[in-house]
Amino acid sequence: MNSPANITDPLVLFMPSGKRGRFPVGTPVLDAARQLGVYVESVCGGRATCGRCQIEVQEGNFAKHKIVSSLDHISPKGPKEERYERVRGLPEARRLSCSATIQGDLVIDVPQDTVINAQVVRKAATDRVIERNSAVQMCYVEVEQPDMHKPTGDLERLKAVLQNDWGWKDLRVAPHLIPEVQKILRKENWAVTAAIHKDMEFSRATVIALYPGLKNEAYGIACDIGSTTIAMHLVSLLSGRVVASSGTSNPQIRFGEDLMSRVSYVMMNPDGREAMTKAVREAVNTLIGKVCEEGGVDRHDIFDCVFVANPIMHHLFLGIDPTELGQAPFALAVSGAVQGWTNDIGIDVNRGARFYTLPCIAGHVGADAAGATLSEGPYRQDSMMLLVDVGTNAEIVLGNKNRVVAASSPTGPAFEGAEISSGQRAAPGAIERVRIDPETLEPRYRVIGTDKWSDEEGFEEASWTTGVTGICGSAIIEVVAEMYLSGIISEDGVVDGSLMAKSPRIIQNGRTFSYLLREGRQGEPRITVTQNDIRAIQLAKAALYAGVKLLMEKQGVETVDTIRFAGAFGSFIDPKYAMVLGLIPDCDLSEVKAVGNAAGTGALMALLNRDHRREIEKQVASIEKIETALEPHFQQLFIDAMALPNKVDPFPKLAEQVKLPPRKVASDDSAAGDAAPRRRSREERAARRNRD
Amino acid sequence: MNSPANITDPLVLFMPSGKRGRFPVGTPVLDAARQLGVYVESVCGGRATCGRCQIEVQEGNFAKHKIVSSLDHISPKGPKEERYERVRGLPEARRLSCSATIQGDLVIDVPQDTVINAQVVRKAATDRVIERNSAVQMCYVEVEQPDMHKPTGDLERLKAVLQNDWGWKDLRVAPHLIPEVQKILRKENWAVTAAIHKDMEFSRATVIALYPGLKNEAYGIACDIGSTTIAMHLVSLLSGRVVASSGTSNPQIRFGEDLMSRVSYVMMNPDGREAMTKAVREAVNTLIGKVCEEGGVDRHDIFDCVFVANPIMHHLFLGIDPTELGQAPFALAVSGAVQGWTNDIGIDVNRGARFYTLPCIAGHVGADAAGATLSEGPYRQDSMMLLVDVGTNAEIVLGNKNRVVAASSPTGPAFEGAEISSGQRAAPGAIERVRIDPETLEPRYRVIGTDKWSDEEGFEEASWTTGVTGICGSAIIEVVAEMYLSGIISEDGVVDGSLMAKSPRIIQNGRTFSYLLREGRQGEPRITVTQNDIRAIQLAKAALYAGVKLLMEKQGVETVDTIRFAGAFGSFIDPKYAMVLGLIPDCDLSEVKAVGNAAGTGALMALLNRDHRREIEKQVASIEKIETALEPHFQQLFIDAMALPNKVDPFPKLAEQVKLPPRKVASDDSAAGDAAPRRRSREERAARRNRD
Repeated sequence: MNSPANITDPLVLFMPSGKRGRFPVGTPVLDAARQLGVYVESVCGGRATCGRCQIEVQEGNFAKHKIVSSLDHISPKGPKEERYERVRGLPEARRLSCSATIQGDLVIDVPQDTVINAQVVRKAATDRVIERNSAVQMCYVEVEQPDMHKPTGDLERLKAVLQNDWGWKDLRVAPHLIPEVQKILRKENWAVTAAIHKDMEFSRATVIALYPGLKNEAYGIACDIGSTTIAMHLVSLLSGRVVASSGTSNPQIRFGEDLMSRVSYVMMNPDGREAMTKAVREAVNTLIGKVCEEGGVDRHDIFDCVFVANPIMHHLFLGIDPTELGQAPFALAVSGAVQGWTNDIGIDVNRGARFYTLPCIAGHVGADAAGATLSEGPYRQDSMMLLVDVGTNAEIVLGNKNRVVAASSPTGPAFEGAEISSGQRAAPGAIERVRIDPETLEPRYRVIGTDKWSDEEGFEEASWTTGVTGICGSAIIEVVAEMYLSGIISEDGVVDGSLMAKSPRIIQNGRTFSYLLREGRQGEPRITVTQNDIRAIQLAKAALYAGVKLLMEKQGVETVDTIRFAGAFGSFIDPKYAMVLGLIPDCDLSEVKAVGNAAGTGALMALLNRDHRREIEKQVASIEKIETALEPHFQQLFIDAMALPNKVDPFPKLAEQVKLPPRKVASDDSAAGDAAPRRRSREERAARRNRD
Repeated sequence: MNSPANITDPLVLFMPSGKRGRFPVGTPVLDAARQLGVYVESVCGGRATCGRCQIEVQEGNFAKHKIVSSLDHISPKGPKEERYERVRGLPEARRLSCSATIQGDLVIDVPQDTVINAQVVRKAATDRVIERNSAVQMCYVEVEQPDMHKPTGDLERLKAVLQNDWGWKDLRVAPHLIPEVQKILRKENWAVTAAIHKDMEFSRATVIALYPGLKNEAYGIACDIGSTTIAMHLVSLLSGRVVASSGTSNPQIRFGEDLMSRVSYVMMNPDGREAMTKAVREAVNTLIGKVCEEGGVDRHDIFDCVFVANPIMHHLFLGIDPTELGQAPFALAVSGAVQGWTNDIGIDVNRGARFYTLPCIAGHVGADAAGATLSEGPYRQDSMMLLVDVGTNAEIVLGNKNRVVAASSPTGPAFEGAEISSGQRAAPGAIERVRIDPETLEPRYRVIGTDKWSDEEGFEEASWTTGVTGICGSAIIEVVAEMYLSGIISEDGVVDGSLMAKSPRIIQNGRTFSYLLREGRQGEPRITVTQNDIRAIQLAKAALYAGVKLLMEKQGVETVDTIRFAGAFGSFIDPKYAMVLGLIPDCDLSEVKAVGNAAGTGALMALLNRDHRREIEKQVASIEKIETALEPHFQQLFIDAMALPNKVDPFPKLAEQVKLPPRKVASDDSAAGDAAPRRRSREERAARRNRD
């Protein structure tokens, strides 16, 4: 990355990128940054008016880099920069890199979180620093005035100066702007800022918005449309800062809780697709209003929107009938990335704003999984990474830089508290943590809304306002795992009725038994874990685990190196209990991490850097998709996974940290047989073979 | 253009293009045509189902070409072609070139007016044969069915086969089609025809429409939006045939007769622009309905529309405020070609149809002049061609292959019958031809609606139904010219009152005199030509001639080689009288031709062949635009041109064919001084200089 400059020219090092090069004395710092590929924003094209290109000189002897950097090595402020400082203000030590020139060796700091617009607040949506190369660029130009001797149109002179000053060739102009150009040009004496969108190499750069004078704001949204929740980041496209993040529930829930019931709704109602498309778009529009209000941003300053979603949400959002996704062969209408005008899909931001949806991986593995894959990047690593997004449909990606495979597994809604007798969503009053004493079988638990455990003094008072109303997803995992660890349930998931003698918390319900977690105060429900609850969790976790195992077999691995839980559910569960339950395969616990809304982070990356769009498009094309329904082996893996943690798979790393109950010897009285056809486990068959 | 085939391979000659080449035995005739660049339509991609690629073998010994062509030299019909013949029928001697292969030397005729769709009638809009290379191509494909193991979207598989079978890369799909693709693919068992639009090199090919099975129809319209009249051709994009042509009046007339009054309307009325845009778009939609009905075509089978218009109509049609065009510097909002979706401009054809407007040359020289320039092609010739489109604003183009210059001249509406006391539009009852006996000063004339001259027996009866109601544009030219030739008016345009003594047709009106053309029967108007009428014609023709002269001076020529009259007006006037009047410069009368709606013909060329779009875009960029208002010399040229035929310019070629009255010697009593500031003519000044 060296410039073709002379060896005696000053050496300039840019931080934090570490890129360096030699440049002749007098080179503007901004030009040096551009030549090295260091991203420094600039809207005004070096006129010292937008103030976007601020940098700081780091003074001192940087022995490691062999650079003595000094304020004497940068030019003093010229009249333009002084004017900017006088009019707009410049923080102490900050310089405009378009005006400041190199006079000697320098270490330059490019602030990553420049607070140039005071009203904008930084939110920690993600700690990741995303290199900026957004699809939208703001370009300030001064257009030639009309001349009767050269009667070119105003639009043509605008295009000409955008080509001349900024290098844009063969520019398109958004159709809605064509009637507006003349007035805008004349408002601020022929000075305008054009918002220019350019995504793929082969797509034409397009003027999508035009403002009189200097326009120094440009925002984008990254949005994850989940079946239950819609989450959104509002981001400055100029600085890369996340300005606001928020979420809302998906109003399609009124048409059906889970995905398949929504597909049914479309199939049964003539206007079902239209109604659901309208509902989700309205919710997105409302959420845009919310993040804009929070960030103090005008929604018309949003020029680019990136969406991720599962395939059915993706189709409904784009106005596509999802019926085909409800039946084999689960044909996606469109699998690739979709680009278009937000106006065409009823999203109310700038009239010329564009949208981009990440590609879908398969009929059940959507753009959300693609987003998570982009965020976590299994394909960027040597180690074998398992990426799991648990929802009503778990999306599973497994791979490393050699090969990535993906599948989905129908876990159902049990992990979200549905189908569980005392289940509820994570909200104040919900039990979120559970421990059971293996000797007394007495529980202690924690409730959302208070820090105290149930056996601590003052818990009853602290939980008075919220009440104790049910068990949320994370606690369902914990309570079933603790019941297993304390011997209340067997590895087959059967509640041991004989324990009634030992503890009053074991209660009989007809032919099965329940565990009483909490009696409940007056007006509060009695909270129990029934045999049916445990069956529901077993079915869900077995579906997920079987999907994971199938991918591990495809990869030819017995273990995975790292596990990433994406999604809200993953953020709250304790990896240890998930592993005790056999939701995920054995792994070093320190290598299991929750990564939050990784799908949303992927959308954010694609918003801020269009290279990431190309990256995930390429990856998705090469990911191998496994359709679990087509794998004859899946059924056996599923049955084996009904047991806790698993009928056949060992969990040696987990066993190092958790005292697991001793395994049952192979026998035929497996209670798992209630839920799935009886088959012999691998161990059984091996044992039988050895006997024969 | 020779193929790389062996010298012993069969020689194939295509007619009427005359292109020839050698091809190995077994080469399909269609492939040979493609390799030579001979245009043969094909929709089905060589499946012998669309029947578009019909050709005929010419049998015989073509000594000039050294080819003996015989039916034995083409393969016999195979099963596919026989099936097509059985199902759809194939005219005698016709073959499908996709199926027929070369077996020996051949002369192949590519029918230029193949009547493949019987319901389509050929109209002679233009005799010109336009080589076809339209922006829209119909491509039949059979799409792979979905496969759970390779879960690409239906859209992606469609794109893949369009790339594989037809070579389309990086295809875009029109947004409105994305929700429709799945259903369309499943309707005819995954066989579809895609309408693909591709215009400029750097624009992406786009699927704009999609049909189940084979779609064998594709139409376009070429439309000239004039201030008074809107004219339209409906054309088959597959065969190039003009299916219907029609016209309608521009409903904007209710907002103002001429262009400037319409600009005023926009300036004075807050919703004026919207109202006029709506009016013209509605008229275009109605006219589309009319040509479609005439041609038996479904308007939704129209995929491409080309428009030409003068700058103000162009702007209003595109929804642009034309106010800037009403005042110096007459800045066009957009001068280049404009492309877009017809849906965005409210034109009701196929939902995915595209439109293209030709570029405007200058603020007063519009896309209509560009269309006429493309049609007549001064830049394609050695000779100096003058191209004039007379309207309320005359657009003038002068040039040859070395250089082309253009200007406009404000002729006003006199030529259209406005501002003339007995003027009217060309309609039944209007006088269209006039002769005056130089001895008796008695007129004879012809009226639209009858073939008889007024002095012929039976004229009164023949003209009874229509009546004789006024003078239309062509007759105004003739009557003034005849008045000059018969000595009723002087070269300065003054009616000679002394002739009252000689003829009762010379009538006094206050201080000036009129000529009585017709007394009128009961209930009919008395038709006279007043001194004011003559002044109006003088002003109009002087403006036009001065503009022409200015361009001739720019070109450095004293004479022009050919003159082309474009527009309806030009079609009806007699070039001889136009020249007597001094509307156009002296020229060999056989070189003066009316070319009808050349602007519309240019639009048609741009519709049928996108190379013509590039051609006129390039030409318009290089045409030199002259703003007559900025030329100090214009005023003098205008004054000289007030005289009949001209104060200073000689008309030797006209004088060879017409006995012109002797010229007045330079004097100062010029009546032209009434209409324009008194200045001394060039001759006067020359004479004075000689005296001094």
